[in-house]
Amino acid sequence: MIELSDILQAQERIKGAAVRTPLIESADLNALAGRRVLVKPENLQRTGSFKFRGAFNRLSQLDDVQRKAGVVAWSSGNHAQGIAASAQILGIHAAIVMPADAPATKVENTKAYGAEIVFYDRYTEDREEIGRALCKERGAVLVPSYDDLDIIAGQGTTGQEIAEDVRALGVTLDAALICCGGGGLIAGSATALKAANPDTDVFAVEPEGYDDHARSLVSGQVEAADTSQPSICDALLAPCPGKLTYPINSALLTGGLVVTEDEVQHAMRMAFRVLKLVVEPGGSVALAALLSGKLDPCHETVAIVLSGGNVDPEVFAKTLAA
Amino acid sequence: MIELSDILQAQERIKGAAVRTPLIESADLNALAGRRVLVKPENLQRTGSFKFRGAFNRLSQLDDVQRKAGVVAWSSGNHAQGIAASAQILGIHAAIVMPADAPATKVENTKAYGAEIVFYDRYTEDREEIGRALCKERGAVLVPSYDDLDIIAGQGTTGQEIAEDVRALGVTLDAALICCGGGGLIAGSATALKAANPDTDVFAVEPEGYDDHARSLVSGQVEAADTSQPSICDALLAPCPGKLTYPINSALLTGGLVVTEDEVQHAMRMAFRVLKLVVEPGGSVALAALLSGKLDPCHETVAIVLSGGNVDPEVFAKTLAA
Repeated sequence: MIELSDILQAQERIKGAAVRTPLIESADLNALAGRRVLVKPENLQRTGSFKFRGAFNRLSQLDDVQRKAGVVAWSSGNHAQGIAASAQILGIHAAIVMPADAPATKVENTKAYGAEIVFYDRYTEDREEIGRALCKERGAVLVPSYDDLDIIAGQGTTGQEIAEDVRALGVTLDAALICCGGGGLIAGSATALKAANPDTDVFAVEPEGYDDHARSLVSGQVEAADTSQPSICDALLAPCPGKLTYPINSALLTGGLVVTEDEVQHAMRMAFRVLKLVVEPGGSVALAALLSGKLDPCHETVAIVLSGGNVDPEVFAKTLAA
Repeated sequence: MIELSDILQAQERIKGAAVRTPLIESADLNALAGRRVLVKPENLQRTGSFKFRGAFNRLSQLDDVQRKAGVVAWSSGNHAQGIAASAQILGIHAAIVMPADAPATKVENTKAYGAEIVFYDRYTEDREEIGRALCKERGAVLVPSYDDLDIIAGQGTTGQEIAEDVRALGVTLDAALICCGGGGLIAGSATALKAANPDTDVFAVEPEGYDDHARSLVSGQVEAADTSQPSICDALLAPCPGKLTYPINSALLTGGLVVTEDEVQHAMRMAFRVLKLVVEPGGSVALAALLSGKLDPCHETVAIVLSGGNVDPEVFAKTLAA
């Protein structure tokens, strides 16, 4: 578990490096959703996703010996960019193990932030094995993408900023919809949101096939996803709830919502048309859950996190045309 | 001319109806532009462009008799949406004269806000004649898109918000790049920005072919655009500087910058890739001027207005692929 104080300390560490993203509202979206929707656009975050928050919080705490040895991470792309950009700012060498079929935009950006990229085959190789071997060989520090308390606290600054802005608006937040892969963003954010208002219901949103949190929250035990299935939500393909994230999430979350690929693509088009925001598939699931009527109307004021915007132009253009 | 007090009054009138858009910053954009860039994303404004500000400021001041008689406006789409949405909120009937080839998104949205649309042929008919005839017939109030002091003051709230946010950041603004069609947005915004800091250089940015302000500012007299030429910047096709806007702009602006269609499309792609924002062609000219090196490097801290995001999905997809 983490405490609110861990998140507040993370907030101090990332200040100036991370973007304090705004909480935005659209009259047209409110009309479409039939309630008040407060949007946290983490696609506007440095590196195009919330992942920079956790990465910078973690890396900025490394000591001199660790900084010299460098860091290793595995990621389909958003954690990769968060680690690479943080490492670049702090002058640390970063090696990232990425799937060969990761979105080109994510690979290019990770390279542009100066990281070394090690590709692997998602279906035949084990990224954790490759990453651990690299760490051993170099004495480097492994930085997990969600199962790490500093990562969770860093991502939790997202929820803390929502809580602060909601308070400034004088609004009571009935619910928050937050996407969920390994569960780091929602674990940290739920900690902050529940500390601000224990009555806010926090829901995990997952793409179909990767609804391991939704099923785990129902069964009360950790359920795995069938990772052999493809999904357009490349950012949310964690195999199961995390060892550190799940205890937090099972204690704090009200439940899980699951969206289809059609619902995700519709949400991406509505983000384009109504919000004028570029949101990647995995970043759109909370909006998708809202627009497809997955949330009870009793939740009148709802925050949603658009977690990232790193989508290849070809994929985006195809989604607009669909 | 208008005074800062007109803008501050407009700010009070539009409060709660208009979005107080944030001033955002991207480390990646700063690196690309070689300076600090503060982005005012008016694509996040209600109706997807800054035009709502002026429209609501104007319409909210109509008396009961005028409200009953309704309003008439002509516009290729952003002023249309601003007027339609403002009229809907205030319970006023709005008739909008729109070119038959206006972007489908703009036509659909204007309809969705409940306005009556009267189409005309851009090349064979005179929209002003059609609009004035409608006004006469109905006793309706004509609401110009830029040559009106309340419209100018309303659009000026954009510049005022930039000035406020720049002050809160403790930053000195060396320059502001603002798109320019009829010149209402820049006239109002320059009034606010110059009141906050007389040393801020304000530049009008126009698409090639429609560089009437740039040429007028050089020659010292009102020069006309050749409106027979097509341009992807449908929002910026005013025939010449306005009767009310030009005296303000000639007094306050440092000069005009002109961008090509290629530079505009590149800027739209960079807004997608780096900023994760959907920006329409006319809304991208300030970013285009910055990224194509049109602004002297001595301007180290620069604000740019992204004025709107109402672009058809087909046009956006085509631009991404180009």
